[in-house]
Parts: sequence; structure tokens; C-alpha cells
Amino acid sequence: MDEFMQAAIAEAKQGLAEGGVPIGSVLVHQGKIIGRGHNRRVQSGSPILHGEMDALENAGRQPAKVYRECTIYTTLSPCCMCAGAIELYGIKKVVIGENQTFMGAEQRLREAGIEVEVRQDASCIDLMQNFIQQHPQLWHEDIGV
Amino acid sequence: MDEFMQAAIAEAKQGLAEGGVPIGSVLVHQGKIIGRGHNRRVQSGSPILHGEMDALENAGRQPAKVYRECTIYTTLSPCCMCAGAIELYGIKKVVIGENQTFMGAEQRLREAGIEVEVRQDASCIDLMQNFIQQHPQLWHEDIGV
Repeated sequence: MDEFMQAAIAEAKQGLAEGGVPIGSVLVHQGKIIGRGHNRRVQSGSPILHGEMDALENAGRQPAKVYRECTIYTTLSPCCMCAGAIELYGIKKVVIGENQTFMGAEQRLREAGIEVEVRQDASCIDLMQNFIQQHPQLWHEDIGV
Repeated sequence: MDEFMQAAIAEAKQGLAEGGVPIGSVLVHQGKIIGRGHNRRVQSGSPILHGEMDALENAGRQPAKVYRECTIYTTLSPCCMCAGAIELYGIKKVVIGENQTFMGAEQRLREAGIEVEVRQDASCIDLMQNFIQQHPQLWHEDIGV
């Protein structure tokens, strides 16, 4: 596995250790991580800080040109909010750990001309499956089901 | 003008007074404001805290049932990120101050079964027009153009 997906998984595991939803993300520009994040629903009482949003927030204000050269890695298929943020900034590519647990707005990303790569990574799947089994209500609250 | 659009405009004006992008929003449940917010790009260095996102964040974690009974008021047509968040939580209705300055993802909201009402309010239009004239770069950075 490449270092960037490993970093996203490390974020997800950190979230789990904090008692949160184990979804992590990193924003990568020219081979360097410029933002790391994980879901903070539990930790910050936040409905908007999904992993991808937290990574974007932690990268801070970037010029439009930078976003267009970025790849965002996320352990789980991005929901319509996160996909909307990725589309807003015209991020070039999205690398997704898995979409078996949840199929997000991938089609919308593709339609916006964004490259989408899905890994179906076993460790990403295990993280989510174990979490949902233990905290089904928290998962449904987070994804708005 | 109803009190809720007035409250959203008050948020936009507060943002302007702070040196920020003048877009405000309030989340209303059963006739009561449960979250207020305004764009915080400048104030917090945030790429994700648009007015609508800030109002959702400030409302905190709400049960799915509450979102489905909510109306969100925003002074400007919601971009694809904010529309994605509104769609994620299944907010019932969106009341938009104006969409002349910027036409957001309204069609996507309608397709998701969300009621959309556009007011073309003169004070909302003035706020944005004056701001863009004075800070064109900040506006383009915020909306990702």
C-alpha cells in the first residue's frame, strides 16, 4: 500500500482511538501531504467534519491552482457533502479505500471530470465493519441514513 | 421580510464587519433558529466554513428527524459543497436570498426532493455586489472559480 493511503488509515485509527467514527483522509500536493484529517462527529460534536472535510480544513486556505493539482485520499467513499467540497475546489483525483460499506457520490465526481480510484482495501473495510457492528446508531447519524 | 432571512442577513453583515465574505445562514426547526453562521474563510482561515456549513456546525449534532423538519435560510445560492451537506442531512427546504450573483447547485437540491425558494432580495444582492467589487480575489478564492 502506498504511504498516502497508509496515512489516511492512520488518521482513521486515531479517530477510533478517540472514540470516533474511523474514517481518515489526507490531501496530497506534489507528493507531499498538506492536510490530514479524520471524522470528528464524536470528538468535536461536528456534523460537518467528515474525514475529507477535516483534511481540507487542516490544509487551510490554498490557491485554486494548488487544489487542481491535488489528490485526496480517503478510507471510505465520499458522501455527497464531501464530494461537493472536492468538486467545489476542483481537486484532480480521489483515491478511495473502499466503497463496499458505503457507496458515496462517486458518479457525481466522475461527471465533474475528477479521476476516481477505488482500492477495496481490506483494512479499510475491516475498520468500518467492526465499527458499524459496535456503533450502528452513530454510523447512521453520521451518514444521515 | 421574514425574521429568518433577516437573521441570515444579520450574520452576513457580521461577517463583513469582521473583514470576511458577507454570506450568512440560519437553520430553523419548528419556527426556532437552532444554528446561525456566516462564511469564515478570512476570520478562521477556513475553506469549508461557508455560511450554511457554519450554521450546520453551530447547530451541533441533531437527530436525523430534526434535519428533515428543518428549513435553512442562506443569503446566497448554495455552492455544491453546501448543497451536498443539505442533501446529506435531508433538510426539507432551502430559502435563498439571491442567485443573481452566483447560481449554486439549486437544481441538484430540487432533484433530491428538497424545496427551493429564491427571494432575489435587494439587500442580499447589494451585499455581494459591493463585496465582489472591493475584493474580487477573495470572492474567487472562496467560490473556487
